[in-house]
Amino acid sequence: MANPSILILAGDGIGPEVMAEVKKIIGWYDAKRGITFDVSEDLVGGCAYDKHGTPLHDDTMAKAQDVDCVLLGAVGGPKYDSLDFSVKPERGLLRLRKEMDLYSNLRPAQCFDALADFSSLKKEVVAGLDIVIVRELTSGVYFGEPRGIFTEGNERVGINTQRYTESEIARVARSAFELARRRNNKVCSMEKANVMESGILWRQVVQEIHDKEYPDVELSHMYADAGAMQLCRWPKQFDVIVTDNLFGDLLSDAAAMLTGSLGMLPSASLGAPMANGRPKALYEPVHGSAPDIAGQGKANPIACILSFAMALRYSFDLGEEATRLEQAVEKVLADGVRTADLMGPEGGVPVSTSAMGDAIIAAL
Amino acid sequence: MANPSILILAGDGIGPEVMAEVKKIIGWYDAKRGITFDVSEDLVGGCAYDKHGTPLHDDTMAKAQDVDCVLLGAVGGPKYDSLDFSVKPERGLLRLRKEMDLYSNLRPAQCFDALADFSSLKKEVVAGLDIVIVRELTSGVYFGEPRGIFTEGNERVGINTQRYTESEIARVARSAFELARRRNNKVCSMEKANVMESGILWRQVVQEIHDKEYPDVELSHMYADAGAMQLCRWPKQFDVIVTDNLFGDLLSDAAAMLTGSLGMLPSASLGAPMANGRPKALYEPVHGSAPDIAGQGKANPIACILSFAMALRYSFDLGEEATRLEQAVEKVLADGVRTADLMGPEGGVPVSTSAMGDAIIAAL
Ligand SMILES: CC(C)[C@H](C(=O)O)[C@@H](O)C(=O)O
Ligand SMILES: CC(C)[C@H](C(=O)O)[C@@H](O)C(=O)O
Repeated sequence: MANPSILILAGDGIGPEVMAEVKKIIGWYDAKRGITFDVSEDLVGGCAYDKHGTPLHDDTMAKAQDVDCVLLGAVGGPKYDSLDFSVKPERGLLRLRKEMDLYSNLRPAQCFDALADFSSLKKEVVAGLDIVIVRELTSGVYFGEPRGIFTEGNERVGINTQRYTESEIARVARSAFELARRRNNKVCSMEKANVMESGILWRQVVQEIHDKEYPDVELSHMYADAGAMQLCRWPKQFDVIVTDNLFGDLLSDAAAMLTGSLGMLPSASLGAPMANGRPKALYEPVHGSAPDIAGQGKANPIACILSFAMALRYSFDLGEEATRLEQAVEKVLADGVRTADLMGPEGGVPVSTSAMGDAIIAAL
Repeated sequence: MANPSILILAGDGIGPEVMAEVKKIIGWYDAKRGITFDVSEDLVGGCAYDKHGTPLHDDTMAKAQDVDCVLLGAVGGPKYDSLDFSVKPERGLLRLRKEMDLYSNLRPAQCFDALADFSSLKKEVVAGLDIVIVRELTSGVYFGEPRGIFTEGNERVGINTQRYTESEIARVARSAFELARRRNNKVCSMEKANVMESGILWRQVVQEIHDKEYPDVELSHMYADAGAMQLCRWPKQFDVIVTDNLFGDLLSDAAAMLTGSLGMLPSASLGAPMANGRPKALYEPVHGSAPDIAGQGKANPIACILSFAMALRYSFDLGEEATRLEQAVEKVLADGVRTADLMGPEGGVPVSTSAMGDAIIAAL
């Protein structure tokens, strides 16, 4: 049987640096555990634009459809700010999400014990925090038509369309309920049903799927503005949050920041099962391309490494190996190994991106 | 000359209780300072629905158009949850905003010294915080057409439209720049120009208005998800934030919660100048109708009282009187007078809604 396959799209900014550490870990699994992946690499984002004039070449898209999963670093940078909307680095990422139909984006917001002091929130508010935001990733205002900038009379008008079908809502709701069953069995769904009809439909469908298929899971509904408040006030009240593409973008970023562990947080974007039973999948850190520190060996590779751990769990059914890798990360943090972004006010000497990767491999 | 006129719409839940304290203060201004307002009262929200079958009667709408300003308490409650979308309490509020054309919603997020410990954020992150979110309030996805729940094939589809014209963006941008000039001269504009064309237009128009009319103000742009992060990480980096209706809804609620002073925060919604030079205006607390504590004399009236202070400043050009009232509130807080929502872990005996109002009048 062929080895499981991974397409690495390291992207821009710190993407290649943090991905280099993941490659070391993939090498370790091959050498030490006899778990071998067929790894190929390609371009996405600004670097793809530089080479091909498009942030995602059709060949790369075809490869992504063909592998067991994609690992992505980060895209974007100031160099590309003035590009036309249609070829901006982000469009490469959005095309992958849409064409692979990765509708369920799992964004854990987890506070690492060793870093609880690091949050702008009080320690008691975040210590031990472990919630997951399930964000719908292939629809909503990100992709709805009509969209564009038009001229009406003598002025410009900017238009986007928020659009959700029943089946789009149902499938991401199912994925949230499934996840909750493996966790603390609680789902909170967020929308603006008091203002938006798409939110009313969202609430109805989530409720229907719950009542019919997951009556054992505790379900609540919250307006997204109240949700933003409650995430800031007492995030531990949540287990799994399910929400749409745009609300999920804001709420998951706020939640990630709250943990104080932004450079630490992975994400998984999952679609329907392929012929081999594995879900279509893309894994990427929550952080961006951080052009200000790119190329300096300062970046924290942990979010990208933990994204690979999610790949082990969700794509390759290697849950125990995933846990092993996560525990190695925790051990290294507990030992006080820190990249620059993790330096507290006490100071100390930060390690480089590559030394952090080495420490994690040593802990494995 | 006729007295300045105010329409009070106390609304639902704790609305009438907190508004009762504002009425006492209006009485104090009449008796002690010879500043007399013509006050009328009417219904909005659930109570209007109960009486008229609509959350805002046409007569009330006409009155609101006719007065110098509206003071609103809060709308909504579980009793009305199952009502049809078109007659929900919120529609009354949204109709007022739209028909009075109140495009500029000022939401200060201010941390009161006496309450800095109260935030879920670390004291150093919020102490002294004083920023204003200027939220566009009459357009965007709240009002765009087409909207609704439709049937397509054999499933339902929920649709809303995000829509901004150039002039809608320009006028709220001007209001943010004007405000910044009276503060620390910094505006940060937030959108998702990396994903939404309406965000691209937003960014362009804000930049154009800046370059042509307010080059002296420091302007920056941020994606709204990064904005949510930065509000949680280091809110003091901001002075004035300008953003659209939906992002403003989430971001201002998050910012309000961060201050730890939710029951304390007022808002002003301003439109174009009327014939008498005063702007169309509605003032309301940021908090909701809090049905769980309604009718128990527990509610904190300060947000509603500070909303009246904003009315003194923005509608009646009584800036000094507004400051006097704000200082009275600060004094009462510094003296340790607390409603139930302001009780810290040290405990103590909370005062009632009406005792808080009395204490503020005594401090005046
Ligand atoms: C880069 C951008 C297009 C993207 C988004 O808005 O979804 C990012 O913010 C994210 O959350 O993954
Ligand atoms: C009550 C609701 C319609 C309203 C809104 O979404 O604008 C509220 O959340 C607010 O922020 O004033």
